[in-house]
Amino acid sequence: MEPVVAEYFSELQCSRQWKGFLRAMAEEFSQQLAEGDLQALMRRLGARFAQASPLPDCNTLDELQIAMGRIWVGQDWGWVALEELPGSLRIQHYCSPLITAFGPDSTAWSPAFLEGVYQEWFRQSQAGTLQVRQVSAPDAAGSIELRLEAA
Amino acid sequence: MEPVVAEYFSELQCSRQWKGFLRAMAEEFSQQLAEGDLQALMRRLGARFAQASPLPDCNTLDELQIAMGRIWVGQDWGWVALEELPGSLRIQHYCSPLITAFGPDSTAWSPAFLEGVYQEWFRQSQAGTLQVRQVSAPDAAGSIELRLEAA
Amino acid sequence: MEPVVAEYFSELQCSRQWKGFLRAMAEEFSQQLAEGDLQALMRRLGARFAQASPLPDCNTLDELQIAMGRIWVGQDWGWVALEELPGSLRIQHYCSPLITAFGPDSTAWSPAFLEGVYQEWFRQSQAGTLQVRQVSAPDAAGSIELRLEAA
Amino acid sequence: MEPVVAEYFSELQCSRQWKGFLRAMAEEFSQQLAEGDLQALMRRLGARFAQASPLPDCNTLDELQIAMGRIWVGQDWGWVALEELPGSLRIQHYCSPLITAFGPDSTAWSPAFLEGVYQEWFRQSQAGTLQVRQVSAPDAAGSIELRLEAA
Repeated sequence: MEPVVAEYFSELQCSRQWKGFLRAMAEEFSQQLAEGDLQALMRRLGARFAQASPLPDCNTLDELQIAMGRIWVGQDWGWVALEELPGSLRIQHYCSPLITAFGPDSTAWSPAFLEGVYQEWFRQSQAGTLQVRQVSAPDAAGSIELRLEAA
Repeated sequence: MEPVVAEYFSELQCSRQWKGFLRAMAEEFSQQLAEGDLQALMRRLGARFAQASPLPDCNTLDELQIAMGRIWVGQDWGWVALEELPGSLRIQHYCSPLITAFGPDSTAWSPAFLEGVYQEWFRQSQAGTLQVRQVSAPDAAGSIELRLEAA
Repeated sequence: MEPVVAEYFSELQCSRQWKGFLRAMAEEFSQQLAEGDLQALMRRLGARFAQASPLPDCNTLDELQIAMGRIWVGQDWGWVALEELPGSLRIQHYCSPLITAFGPDSTAWSPAFLEGVYQEWFRQSQAGTLQVRQVSAPDAAGSIELRLEAA
Repeated sequence: MEPVVAEYFSELQCSRQWKGFLRAMAEEFSQQLAEGDLQALMRRLGARFAQASPLPDCNTLDELQIAMGRIWVGQDWGWVALEELPGSLRIQHYCSPLITAFGPDSTAWSPAFLEGVYQEWFRQSQAGTLQVRQVSAPDAAGSIELRLEAA
């Protein structure tokens, strides 16, 4: 894929209505807050998002993945794949619009929003003693790997 | 217009991609910040937005209105009408998505974003000793009246 | 609501990506086809749409309304209310984007698309001996009333 | 780029509001019309589109490219690069939503829409004795090469 085409697709990931606002927000917060505080803020926003979009009861990992995917896909936030690993659960979130929205300088803090969302969704599913942690930096498509594991 | 139709149109005003995020942000900030601080934050975000979307040189009020409108319409943020009054300039912003995005409880602070945008745009147009002030609460369509006048 | 605001909301009903294309299509077809042929074409398109988006099994009218609504709302095509009347079923489709998309001259033929969709959905639900008919012209919001009744 | 990510980006290229309608249209027309007739129809739709979105006066190729790009980008239809070659003008249209909208079986006829648009735009620019012809099949991103050359 030519770089200029990849860049166009990346721009399409974020609604034109909020790109200007969210970039302004990213600039302002980066100047006002330390990185740890920004991450904590994004985690709280994620938790509130998940409280406002609670999951239905799910009995299997597949049902959980489908329920989460329905919320993400309905809002053009990409989708998620869950996979059991020895000792942890892999949460692969594909194609989030976070990096397009908040800009390339936000890779250190904007994915914490997803940590907050998944932590709260797993808390709702009685997995609350486990901890969601981001384990990869976002790639060029906004895809991010997280894990649910012992705190 | 039936209320349920008006409500549907109001929902259409804000992109489905960011409604959940922005509502979470509004809740978080309302709990953490006093109203005056929230307004000041929105004004700073507005100023940054206008710096990142500067106006071209304009020689008349009509040109100014067209240049501003091009930016707003291109992002589905409504549009603006400028009108000279004795001693001030009326800035009527129609159909902003702010209230749909941040929720009905945000009417006291979210319009300050527009104050920040217009203040910075008029500063770019050498009208910087004048002050932009919101003079009406947003109506059901997100329309807001502001004035540019002596500080 | 000021007329200019109502017009803005009406424009928002149809995605900016296809407005130009669909208007061109409406012009072309209006010149090439008689009104009855245009209606028949739209009905066939509606039937194909409903075949590609089949409803899940539904046991009650409420379930049917929810299943249909899920499809419409997910695509920004408004929503539907079903109501049993003596001898017929009222199908009130709210806020379709058809008139914004195809233009004000299309009111005589574009709603036939919805006739085709509902006819096929009711055929899937074993109500296929009954006939869906449009019973009101679209209003300014693109809302249209149809009925399911004996052929 | 993983195939599943490329597929997601491809889906994002076409507004969710019209994908179902346009796919139904593609199916119907493919069954009713021969390929040559479908191409001719798309060319006529393209000409009407260009008449409804005329270009401003342009003095250079750069101005022409900018004027065309403004129309395409404003509607999420990708963008265009013009390049003078010996004996022809290369028209490289990047990332059109046509293939996502009308489906992979439409590659033989849907790009004729762009032939119609560019033919009419060059006619408006007094290059009407020359002919626009598609010279490459669309690639996975919906990019298509055309040429303006002697008929």
